[in-house]
Amino acid sequence: MTTPLILNRARQLVEPELRRAVDTLCAELLLPSRYHFGWVETDGSPSSAGSGKGLRPALAVLSAEAVGAPTVVGLPGAVAVELIHNYSLIHDDIIDGDTERRHRTTVWAAFGVDDAVISGDALHTLAFQVLLADPTPERVAATVRLAEATAAMLAGQAADMAFDDQPVVTLQDCLEMEAGKTGALLGYSASVGAVLAGAPDHQVAALDAYGRSLGLAFQAVDDVLGIWGDPTATGKAAGNDLRERKKSMPVAIVMSAGDEAAQELRALYDQPGHLSDVDIERATQIIETAGGRQRTEQEAQTHLTAALAALEGVGLVDESVEELHGLANFVATRNH
Amino acid sequence: MTTPLILNRARQLVEPELRRAVDTLCAELLLPSRYHFGWVETDGSPSSAGSGKGLRPALAVLSAEAVGAPTVVGLPGAVAVELIHNYSLIHDDIIDGDTERRHRTTVWAAFGVDDAVISGDALHTLAFQVLLADPTPERVAATVRLAEATAAMLAGQAADMAFDDQPVVTLQDCLEMEAGKTGALLGYSASVGAVLAGAPDHQVAALDAYGRSLGLAFQAVDDVLGIWGDPTATGKAAGNDLRERKKSMPVAIVMSAGDEAAQELRALYDQPGHLSDVDIERATQIIETAGGRQRTEQEAQTHLTAALAALEGVGLVDESVEELHGLANFVATRNH
Repeated sequence: MTTPLILNRARQLVEPELRRAVDTLCAELLLPSRYHFGWVETDGSPSSAGSGKGLRPALAVLSAEAVGAPTVVGLPGAVAVELIHNYSLIHDDIIDGDTERRHRTTVWAAFGVDDAVISGDALHTLAFQVLLADPTPERVAATVRLAEATAAMLAGQAADMAFDDQPVVTLQDCLEMEAGKTGALLGYSASVGAVLAGAPDHQVAALDAYGRSLGLAFQAVDDVLGIWGDPTATGKAAGNDLRERKKSMPVAIVMSAGDEAAQELRALYDQPGHLSDVDIERATQIIETAGGRQRTEQEAQTHLTAALAALEGVGLVDESVEELHGLANFVATRNH
Repeated sequence: MTTPLILNRARQLVEPELRRAVDTLCAELLLPSRYHFGWVETDGSPSSAGSGKGLRPALAVLSAEAVGAPTVVGLPGAVAVELIHNYSLIHDDIIDGDTERRHRTTVWAAFGVDDAVISGDALHTLAFQVLLADPTPERVAATVRLAEATAAMLAGQAADMAFDDQPVVTLQDCLEMEAGKTGALLGYSASVGAVLAGAPDHQVAALDAYGRSLGLAFQAVDDVLGIWGDPTATGKAAGNDLRERKKSMPVAIVMSAGDEAAQELRALYDQPGHLSDVDIERATQIIETAGGRQRTEQEAQTHLTAALAALEGVGLVDESVEELHGLANFVATRNH
């Protein structure tokens, strides 16, 4: 099955369950949550905005199939991880002060910080409720791992926030931070179906490793798109990461080198006030010339290769492995 | 044992476990969290500020003893509920814009909204990790209930926020909101020790009912203190709830009566800009004269009586029942 078809099939399987879970929230929490998922507009009228690529639920579903279990076994994990991911997006947008996501106003910008804090909290709790609705040993194991993955995600997010105050951040710092911020939950997504199926540890570990490496590849691509992405595709302003003075991988690679390019880039980041379009263009040029883009693209490739390698030799279903390959390649070559 | 002794003993049992759990957080999340608990100042130096009355952990510990289990059985529940309670305080202070709690600057006011959002999130997740560190059937049952209680607390908090936009709120509305916002987690606290001990359902239900009623009594007292409390004892400005135009029980009782006092009070609340000290004094007088204070104090008494009654005839340990009585009376007669 092609990757768009895989994502679409997973969305059609998971979304009704996700909606059923979200619809248990009280009216006040329901509207901002449903708005965030792209199901309604701010006034509650139906929306066809849609809710992202659905990579995590697709991985959850595939990871059940990859160990020979029926697709439906992965569903509670798919819903739980989508809830955690989306709670974190709602809170991240507050933290980053981002006013747009997926071409729409973010929850805090549309409903206020208060509603965004509490709606995020509600989705966070709901993820645990969904998994524990039927506390079988497999679902309890999936819950234990969910708490661990969420904690790792938060530690990564906190490390990312701390980058703002660090004069120099290295590529290694970025990778460690992203292993938590993005990798932990992708590792969870890619293994939760196997956990729910009661698969042996070595299969769970292989799928988890695939997801973690995929997370790093995902993030390397994200960091390239954050500077060179097409705004009409990404839904974010051009050079967005530079405007926000993010120490993403391409920036870290160049800034930590200690040469002339590093000095010039740091001087640009250190200047007071907003960065002008000319500043952004100059910074983009410095990073590209100094090899920051190329080396970040190499990182994406390295972790993509590691992700694919992790799936070998542990007796996973061939067809599922092929589909997981397709998803990984899709992530590594996407333009938004 | 007297109530201060009970609270003190529980604190001494629970705090080392709580610190051990919090200390697993990464450095960036650790400082705001430890500051919130009153263990350190904003610069990380030791503080003797202390972390509240510790009512919830005391209830958790007592509820294990009340069903004849060793005290230690209640500890994971005590730590988990204290983590959930404190995460919610950190986020509530953002939502309410409160800059002081327990005579200290709130986390968001000291570290920024960003750090407050993510530190709260980390304590939220940590509560689930603590209970699931050893996923026995009893601890899983306690986790299922924790997710439910947290969801109910959030629904109550959301209902409270929605009160701002409702022209009239009745006493019944307040009680339903508080049953979620305060009652659910106090019911959890007062029963989690019994759940962890594997006690029979009717004992768990009795302790839960005690805690829920205690929550309503607690809140009625809180609402009286929010208007008539002594600032040096409560750590909040005099008439704080009126200044924030809260529709607390005394306000709701008077404002929903439809008489002259209701009209005058509503006119005060509806006027634009800040309420002056004279306005606050006038509002206080209206509410007191119209019986809002007296009827709220009656509510406290009613729910206190219900809390005590819930403990009868289910075979709980006599000494523990006496201590639970003491705690309830302490809550209902406290001045802060």
